[in-house]
Amino acid sequence: MSNKEDHVRNEIIFLTSNVNKFREAQSVLNRFGIRLKRMGMLERLEIQSESLEEISIYSAIHGYQMLRKPVITEDAGLFVFALRGFPGPYSSYIFRTIGVHGLLKLLDDITQRNAIFKSVVTFFDGTFLKTFSGTVQGEIATECKGNKGFGFDPIFTPKHASNKTFGEMNKTEKNKYSHRAKAFTKFAKWYSSTFKIKPS
Amino acid sequence: MSNKEDHVRNEIIFLTSNVNKFREAQSVLNRFGIRLKRMGMLERLEIQSESLEEISIYSAIHGYQMLRKPVITEDAGLFVFALRGFPGPYSSYIFRTIGVHGLLKLLDDITQRNAIFKSVVTFFDGTFLKTFSGTVQGEIATECKGNKGFGFDPIFTPKHASNKTFGEMNKTEKNKYSHRAKAFTKFAKWYSSTFKIKPS
Repeated sequence: MSNKEDHVRNEIIFLTSNVNKFREAQSVLNRFGIRLKRMGMLERLEIQSESLEEISIYSAIHGYQMLRKPVITEDAGLFVFALRGFPGPYSSYIFRTIGVHGLLKLLDDITQRNAIFKSVVTFFDGTFLKTFSGTVQGEIATECKGNKGFGFDPIFTPKHASNKTFGEMNKTEKNKYSHRAKAFTKFAKWYSSTFKIKPS
Repeated sequence: MSNKEDHVRNEIIFLTSNVNKFREAQSVLNRFGIRLKRMGMLERLEIQSESLEEISIYSAIHGYQMLRKPVITEDAGLFVFALRGFPGPYSSYIFRTIGVHGLLKLLDDITQRNAIFKSVVTFFDGTFLKTFSGTVQGEIATECKGNKGFGFDPIFTPKHASNKTFGEMNKTEKNKYSHRAKAFTKFAKWYSSTFKIKPS
């Protein structure tokens, strides 16, 4: 593969309007020598589905068709067992309406607070269509803790993390546990081995 | 217009998997001599959007493209002011997860309980693409009342309805107030005048 192709192969468009997601993903991919370029959603790219996979795949295909360049999309959600998976695939909308406070209220007399965060990353370059998922188990805290991260981070305590919420962790520490870091790491391993990308 | 065309014109496919919606709509259209045929969603037809109009229009266009026959779609939602519009366009998913009980819990210390139900009906026959909306103002009751209707009906009290919830009304009574009946009545008036449909 020529240097020019290498250069192109090392840069992928990450279609997301969420700057925090972008930074977390880039921080994972740096180690593999893969550079992301952020681009906001082009137009209404998402389908209404209860499957993160379907949403992520649909967005990647649609994004590629518009741009004709390799793209990555990610869809993620918080699934609370006691609430039958709520807020799930609509976590972003539900965060913007009832917020962290609303979710805590729904759980205020509930002791079973298990939840998972799940991330699904899709890569599409017109030839390869691949998805990679990552999950992290944890619990919903009884109160907001920390002001780092975004969304429901301040009320999610991942397992084996000394009772800290994602909201109390900086990006590097969150990436040790997070669903997103797991999914992007799987992607990076596949991508760098498939396209022979070497860390710069 | 020939009798045969009349016959075809009098029957429209309503794409919905919700039998209750279908019955309410048919009950409105009966008065206009318009017959609906129910068909479940063909596949993943809905986009993820916070606009009922976009969801309904997209589904109608996609449905027509699959069937090549005149179709109607409807998207509806309950918008609670104190919750920034929640559950809104995701009312159906949120009903299936946290349910009526969850919504009451979110509002349990909130006195401002204003809400609207909104329905958007789209008709598409390959030529005419028309949307019709209907809204009803009301309040979220403090407890569940009645076992009629569906979804959030037992906790929604429309204005000027003697404090009854939709859950306490039969179909005929609900249709005097409902967002859905208003949208379908607008549609029926336009349709019967455009295509010269006479009540049979």
